[in-house]
Amino acid sequence: MHHMDHYRNAFTDYLAREVQIKEPQNLYAPIIYILGLGGKRIRPVMTLMAADIFGEDYRRALDAALAIEVFHNFSLVHDDIMDAAPLRRGQEAVHKKWDINTGILSGDAMLICSYRFLERYNGLVFKDLVKLLGKTAIEVCEGQQYDVDFESRDVVTIPEYFKMIEYKTAVLLGAALQMGAIIAEVDKVAQDLIYEYGRNLGIAFQLQDDYLDAFGDPKTFGKQVGGDIIENKKTFLYLKARELASPQELRELDHLFSIAPLDPTDKINAVKNVFLNTGASEYAQSEIEGFTQRAFEKLEPLKISEAKKRILRKLGEGLMMRLI
Amino acid sequence: MHHMDHYRNAFTDYLAREVQIKEPQNLYAPIIYILGLGGKRIRPVMTLMAADIFGEDYRRALDAALAIEVFHNFSLVHDDIMDAAPLRRGQEAVHKKWDINTGILSGDAMLICSYRFLERYNGLVFKDLVKLLGKTAIEVCEGQQYDVDFESRDVVTIPEYFKMIEYKTAVLLGAALQMGAIIAEVDKVAQDLIYEYGRNLGIAFQLQDDYLDAFGDPKTFGKQVGGDIIENKKTFLYLKARELASPQELRELDHLFSIAPLDPTDKINAVKNVFLNTGASEYAQSEIEGFTQRAFEKLEPLKISEAKKRILRKLGEGLMMRLI
Repeated sequence: MHHMDHYRNAFTDYLAREVQIKEPQNLYAPIIYILGLGGKRIRPVMTLMAADIFGEDYRRALDAALAIEVFHNFSLVHDDIMDAAPLRRGQEAVHKKWDINTGILSGDAMLICSYRFLERYNGLVFKDLVKLLGKTAIEVCEGQQYDVDFESRDVVTIPEYFKMIEYKTAVLLGAALQMGAIIAEVDKVAQDLIYEYGRNLGIAFQLQDDYLDAFGDPKTFGKQVGGDIIENKKTFLYLKARELASPQELRELDHLFSIAPLDPTDKINAVKNVFLNTGASEYAQSEIEGFTQRAFEKLEPLKISEAKKRILRKLGEGLMMRLI
Repeated sequence: MHHMDHYRNAFTDYLAREVQIKEPQNLYAPIIYILGLGGKRIRPVMTLMAADIFGEDYRRALDAALAIEVFHNFSLVHDDIMDAAPLRRGQEAVHKKWDINTGILSGDAMLICSYRFLERYNGLVFKDLVKLLGKTAIEVCEGQQYDVDFESRDVVTIPEYFKMIEYKTAVLLGAALQMGAIIAEVDKVAQDLIYEYGRNLGIAFQLQDDYLDAFGDPKTFGKQVGGDIIENKKTFLYLKARELASPQELRELDHLFSIAPLDPTDKINAVKNVFLNTGASEYAQSEIEGFTQRAFEKLEPLKISEAKKRILRKLGEGLMMRLI
């Protein structure tokens, strides 16, 4: 077993070697650009680590790790167009640095390339990887569609919200781990457990992202604190606050989510107070705790050494503590 | 063997059964819509016919036919966004009936679905189909990028133009036929011949499309005659005319391609005269003839009955005579 940094370095070396500029350059330059913006490479690291933990040479999982990372970046490029987001990882988004058409077409090519990286596997491993990528990819699209739909809907239930974040974020973490397990050719029970570990961790992670958007420390949270409140986003905190609110708190929340003051400071503080007073913030914390716990429970039945389980738990803790 | 209409009806029945509305409806409704606009279904018919001709039950090729048709429609949805085309098959394009974001996301889902339809095959057939779809799909993207690039470039060579139409249009016709051959599990030699038949036919078809855009009969040509001339498109006729033009004809053509008169009738006629006088139009006709001939030659070495070759030739003739 290796340290996280070892997998990350092995991955970025492989990425630099396998993804190079070629003709037509206007198609491939944006792909090199977005993949070069870095990020934590958490998904490919998960694939390599899972292969290693299940007893396979992790280097055999490099192509699957590449497929996962290129797929993830495809979804970022197309999502940034749909969200009209000017920045990605602090740099210009592809559709801003080039244009929307470039973002569409280079994104399409990335989605296709992610499948093509899997071609180096054979037999049932190949088929299982392609099926998992397909199932995951369509769920990510469906999750993005639910997210878009929720913006224009008045009522969103909490189960609907959970399904959205599960599809949009969590399933790809599960798939990243399961791909490593598929390459190590472990049985379906172990594959499902490691997938469920990643999926539950992904839900916890996304819930925590919602929580930190309101209550995070501006110094350590990567994004603008209060951003979701400014945009009137229907996050878990908002949906839960509405559910728990008294009639008066409900009126206040509805009012706050109908205004767009130039200086949002007061609005952010008022909304945070509703989140606190209704008990929604406490509830969110316990849900985060619950999904993280459920994730760790999935590791218990796995027939691997305690030392390896500890490494997987450390991966999850690192993700939840925002250390990686 | 069956009549073309038989394959087409079998395909549209299967399409209606396999592609149905589901949640989230905003993702799938545009997919049902674009696939329901019809068209000649030439690509899926090719897949079914090829399987049949190589001795396989054509119904085993229905999923591959679906993959090819859904992939083709994905490329139409995204191309229509990039070209800002308001209409598709005489109806509103997806990004007009809904919006650009819907076109992007539903298109992405169609690309993913086209891979997923292949999951019903197994073993080497599955792997060969996925590899062929991947290679073809990335070429279609590259062809679209070359097409976009050519618009803003001053000089485009004729070999570059051929590569563009080969990738953007022709390879998918080759792949549609080869998929049928893969499912029939014929050897690689036969697979390559039937692919080359489709690819050469595709180039001839696209060249003819260029030709008919200028010289077609408005009553039978589906699109606006002169459309490419109005848009100053660098078609084969234009590039060949520039190559063959006298200095005076070159000046005239450059002038005509720099103006945008409100009534384009005189411009269209003047450009057509340059195409005729330089010999570009005659040259185009002989190239169309040449690629069609090359396509038919690919059928000769195939170890199938003369009756089956006749059916394949009829398919090609029908395509070139715009009868199907």
